[in-house]
Amino acid sequence: MTTIVVGYVPKAEGRAALRRAAEEAKLRDAKLVVVNSHRGGRSFDSDEAAASDAALTEVREQLDSTGVPYEVRQLVRGLDPAEDLVAVAEQVHAEFIVIGLRRRSPVGKLILGSNAQRVLLDAPCPVLAVKAEDGED
Amino acid sequence: MTTIVVGYVPKAEGRAALRRAAEEAKLRDAKLVVVNSHRGGRSFDSDEAAASDAALTEVREQLDSTGVPYEVRQLVRGLDPAEDLVAVAEQVHAEFIVIGLRRRSPVGKLILGSNAQRVLLDAPCPVLAVKAEDGED
Repeated sequence: MTTIVVGYVPKAEGRAALRRAAEEAKLRDAKLVVVNSHRGGRSFDSDEAAASDAALTEVREQLDSTGVPYEVRQLVRGLDPAEDLVAVAEQVHAEFIVIGLRRRSPVGKLILGSNAQRVLLDAPCPVLAVKAEDGED
Repeated sequence: MTTIVVGYVPKAEGRAALRRAAEEAKLRDAKLVVVNSHRGGRSFDSDEAAASDAALTEVREQLDSTGVPYEVRQLVRGLDPAEDLVAVAEQVHAEFIVIGLRRRSPVGKLILGSNAQRVLLDAPCPVLAVKAEDGED
């Protein structure tokens, strides 16, 4: 069974990535590895931990209805999200990685964040970049 | 029938993108629109035109064996490749776009080219970024 790795954050772009990753997994009978990455250290306080638990509940709700087999890896090991994603993709020999991009806002120009750039460049496999739908928060 | 749009240049990253796009099209019974973009003007001389024809022959050879329905659009209308790709994707309501990235060389750091960045940011649909295999020219 092939594996699709998806980077998840509890924001519109993370949900868009998760939705698309689940569709792709279903299409090719793949399983999903959902990576929720935190640097940790002093910035990972109890508020963040609670928000993170809520996010994982949201992931489960979004995925349980799809029937796609999945696992969630919550990583707190001092790495940037891009490093965590690439490392997991290498470890599980991912078919591809799905990441979410922030959509251009009405007032500001969208630029490609450093994490997205690093995943695109460092990934050992293709990367599917998905934008959040208009109107999603 | 859904449509996958792929940016093609006669280089390793273009061939990698085309190969992956054909696999994805087969998987979901989609058709392919292969976009080969040239700015035109004085830079599009007869040498380039000949190279471009050779490239299209190569595309046909690579795709005819797959059984995937496809069309090749060779665009010479003064636009950057990113603009052409995004415009075609909008026009055909593409399921997604496939682009090739150059792999990091042993001596130089890979950076994300401006065309790749623009496609990722401006595309009306997800973008699958594929790297050339090691050892491909």
